[in-house]
Amino acid sequence: VLRRDYDGQDCAVARTLEIVGERWTLLIVRDAFLGRNRFEQFQESLGIARNVLTDRLNRLVDEGILERVRYSERPERFEYRLTPKGRDLRLTLTALRQWGEEHLGEAPRRTLQSVADGSRIVAGLVPADAEVLAADEVELVAVAPPASPE
Amino acid sequence: VLRRDYDGQDCAVARTLEIVGERWTLLIVRDAFLGRNRFEQFQESLGIARNVLTDRLNRLVDEGILERVRYSERPERFEYRLTPKGRDLRLTLTALRQWGEEHLGEAPRRTLQSVADGSRIVAGLVPADAEVLAADEVELVAVAPPASPE
Repeated sequence: VLRRDYDGQDCAVARTLEIVGERWTLLIVRDAFLGRNRFEQFQESLGIARNVLTDRLNRLVDEGILERVRYSERPERFEYRLTPKGRDLRLTLTALRQWGEEHLGEAPRRTLQSVADGSRIVAGLVPADAEVLAADEVELVAVAPPASPE
Repeated sequence: VLRRDYDGQDCAVARTLEIVGERWTLLIVRDAFLGRNRFEQFQESLGIARNVLTDRLNRLVDEGILERVRYSERPERFEYRLTPKGRDLRLTLTALRQWGEEHLGEAPRRTLQSVADGSRIVAGLVPADAEVLAADEVELVAVAPPASPE
């Protein structure tokens, strides 16, 4: 069920923010891209109340951004994996990250690279007929810390 | 003053969301891109409480995303304009919009085009050495409604 939090805002930006604009939601998606996929991993990473995390995870599953997969039968345990719809949020997360690095003085800690050849990948505004990479064609890698001055 | 809403989240995504992740904030920025720049225009467009709008506008000015410019002396009145830092949120907004169009079935209502030649522009993941357009080299235009069936 789509909550019409931004009622009257007939716009794809508003509709998207209804789903991913809740507090913590995009950080959960970011964590999933970093390989975290179990409740305890998200909880440890984000340090948020368990009921809030449960609510956000359920919402992400309801919206088809994460899927809930059983990985243990006894005891029954589940993990969360990004769906293709979820992985397509890579572009949005990359745009947010780049803005923070450029305008908030955040030192780059991770960068995107091409899975195929390891070349560096960025988010950008390009002609509609330009060749762009799909979310699955890129991966996050740690940026090497700057060398200490001699 | 940077509020550390996502304390412990040492990451450019989290830092960016501390600033633009508050409810309504990105819709105010979207409205500014659509040419709205006065308090009453934002209020009419968003339909939010005036105290919330005041809070968000002040925060955006504090963070250097909007600038407050006096346009009338008597009575004294101000309008809000995107700074270069604010205009650089174009990429993030475009990524959010595209995701909504692709995954939520939102019909495209606006598209980006090149100011120079009117060609269609999208947000995408591209090699770091690809030619990308700056925020000021693109403009939003309305998408023509689909033709009625004959």
